[in-house]
Amino acid sequence: MPVNLPKINPALLKPIQGIRLGWTKAFIKKPNRKDLLVIEISDHSSVSGVFTQNRFCAAPVTLCKQHLLAKKNGDVNHIKALVINTGNANAGTGEQGMVDALTTCQHLAKIMNIPVNSILPFSTGVILEHLPMSKLLSGLPNAVTNLSDNNWADAASTIMTTDIAPKAYCTELLIENEKVTITGISKGAGMIHPNMATMLGYVATDAHISQTLLDEITKEIADLSFNCISVDGDTSTNDSFIIIATGKSKVPAINHRTDAGFNAIFDALLETSQYLAKAIIRDGEGATKFITVTVAGAKTIEEAKTIGFSIGKSPLVKTAMFASDPNLGRVLAAIGYASRECKSLEDLDTTQLELYFGDILVAENGGRAKNYQEEQGQAIMNEAEINIKVQLHRGDTEATIWTCDFSYDYVKINAEYRT
Amino acid sequence: MPVNLPKINPALLKPIQGIRLGWTKAFIKKPNRKDLLVIEISDHSSVSGVFTQNRFCAAPVTLCKQHLLAKKNGDVNHIKALVINTGNANAGTGEQGMVDALTTCQHLAKIMNIPVNSILPFSTGVILEHLPMSKLLSGLPNAVTNLSDNNWADAASTIMTTDIAPKAYCTELLIENEKVTITGISKGAGMIHPNMATMLGYVATDAHISQTLLDEITKEIADLSFNCISVDGDTSTNDSFIIIATGKSKVPAINHRTDAGFNAIFDALLETSQYLAKAIIRDGEGATKFITVTVAGAKTIEEAKTIGFSIGKSPLVKTAMFASDPNLGRVLAAIGYASRECKSLEDLDTTQLELYFGDILVAENGGRAKNYQEEQGQAIMNEAEINIKVQLHRGDTEATIWTCDFSYDYVKINAEYRT
Repeated sequence: MPVNLPKINPALLKPIQGIRLGWTKAFIKKPNRKDLLVIEISDHSSVSGVFTQNRFCAAPVTLCKQHLLAKKNGDVNHIKALVINTGNANAGTGEQGMVDALTTCQHLAKIMNIPVNSILPFSTGVILEHLPMSKLLSGLPNAVTNLSDNNWADAASTIMTTDIAPKAYCTELLIENEKVTITGISKGAGMIHPNMATMLGYVATDAHISQTLLDEITKEIADLSFNCISVDGDTSTNDSFIIIATGKSKVPAINHRTDAGFNAIFDALLETSQYLAKAIIRDGEGATKFITVTVAGAKTIEEAKTIGFSIGKSPLVKTAMFASDPNLGRVLAAIGYASRECKSLEDLDTTQLELYFGDILVAENGGRAKNYQEEQGQAIMNEAEINIKVQLHRGDTEATIWTCDFSYDYVKINAEYRT
Repeated sequence: MPVNLPKINPALLKPIQGIRLGWTKAFIKKPNRKDLLVIEISDHSSVSGVFTQNRFCAAPVTLCKQHLLAKKNGDVNHIKALVINTGNANAGTGEQGMVDALTTCQHLAKIMNIPVNSILPFSTGVILEHLPMSKLLSGLPNAVTNLSDNNWADAASTIMTTDIAPKAYCTELLIENEKVTITGISKGAGMIHPNMATMLGYVATDAHISQTLLDEITKEIADLSFNCISVDGDTSTNDSFIIIATGKSKVPAINHRTDAGFNAIFDALLETSQYLAKAIIRDGEGATKFITVTVAGAKTIEEAKTIGFSIGKSPLVKTAMFASDPNLGRVLAAIGYASRECKSLEDLDTTQLELYFGDILVAENGGRAKNYQEEQGQAIMNEAEINIKVQLHRGDTEATIWTCDFSYDYVKINAEYRT
């Protein structure tokens, strides 16, 4: 079961003016489940995305990048629809994969009467299998017919793969006394590691944010949310994160960081994205613990994040957490080998750093802290939410990452998936 | 059970002239098990070592480096004894840890009547606990009394921690018609990843190899053996690998790479070290498969090794192997994200590479190979020994790494260890 992930309440997922969502059951991998989603975006919206860095990136990711680039070079309000299927990732599918992704866009373009390159395609699921195109294409008209501004909860269910629970978030804020709404959904449970995860995230707001500004902050927000999570250290071929700003609210346009409401909308978009990213960890494959690792006193963000992930990815730390074992030794060892991936840590002075479990100082001066009692650590480890903090005392930069433990069920899920 | 790891036969582990080994039961962690080993080294031997890169390196590792440095700066035949305990790693133990390691050397120095800095100390086991010094010190005289040139098999058992089986190897060769013998032992099962693993390796030969030459080849041999293995991607605080050349055989001294017998002794030392390194993987925690990953056609060794370990460390690949699932998608995804750790791979052309399971071409042109049938991959995955080969077609450098699968038992062992 997901760790402290509240059930989504469809009534709390407010519509975003300018966005309609339509789903259908296309029988792509399994019979009788929602597996195909179309999101319609009104004219004059800004749309930005960040994508996996995996060299084996999936065909739809390649096409998304091309279509976003076409948009940048021409009409800034170009993207008019997203199409998302689950059950098949269309990754590692060679030239046929590109043909299939493009054919999907072409058919949807015809149905919706919009340009082919105004559509962004996304796929998630099994790698290396070709998309079942006739099923997918025959599902498209149903999804379009189903379009409604009230379908966010169903949309969250439609894009799931090994997820146990759908993930969605909604927040409202006032800017200059006018209401702005942000609603978002995400999916992902395994093959999760930044840059990015087998994750899809879609966040929409009715605020007006200029395309240039949205491009900037989408990357910043991804780096502070979806790029701060790891289930297993595996970076997927399909990760995509999209922010859409429809501009339908009555709030004045936000074109620059100095414009009224910028900080408020940035914070609310970040809050939404962090909630959705953390929801993926709470629903991580086999997860029984939600672990927050904060690394402070680093010289650079890279140092802080590398140490955070070195702890968060270590199978030895993660199995100890599963066992509620306050095993500081494994955490210290993981800090110690972080220099493998971040050269500037080669001069890390381990006698200077402090390690905390919750608020308890557990290690200092290169060893166990003098007053630390194992019962204190045990009490913290018994909780479902565990906070680990490292203070390096070598700079003033801090980063936080989120991860989960490594359980029998992780092995079970991944040994049995596909069979 | 270890994967295809033959039981050691004590009769086949030939003594090395100039080396005596003595063990005892010092009750360091568990009652009534061999846990303390002394290795005596005759005068005029060459001794070289390589050690963990972990910034939290253990106190004995720090002392080993100091004593080897003292040796380099002065008497080249200085190292006269090794002392190794299991049950406690003396790591993350701050200043007291250094005092304890030094005290161990001082006591042994007195018993054996040799200089303190002619002794190299090693510890393996639990991290962050202080060594039980009175037990350890009172065990030393027994270990010294027990010294014999015939104790290699017992020595291999003495240094085990979570290992299921002891690991040893012996080979003989003729150089200029004179016999040379090489005998070695190793330990390690978890927290195994190069630079280096929670592993200890000791290889001794009666060949005469100059100190300078031995220093050079010890690093080279470590890079081709112990630095090519990974159980879980965790780099331990205590890894150490030592080669000793006593010079007691009748073979002429080998001082340069051009000297007679150099290639033969290098190859035999490498064979011994690779056997011992692979034995650690065969006995990897919870291992049911022994996996060899060869990456060819790389531009650099770093590219080849990074891709090899990207596959070998991926929890998704390892759980698929446990399930005997020919899941090419997860292997391709792991190749695709290797650029995270090796920048030069950012221009990797995934349409050019070929992936083989055993001799079967399973992926090419960015997708599944045309003639590949899943039954073929299944037959290969059903075996306990699995070979994966990647041909990158971008250079002429090749590297091989060894790893194992990820099973329920890995989680079980590491969730229960320490409790």
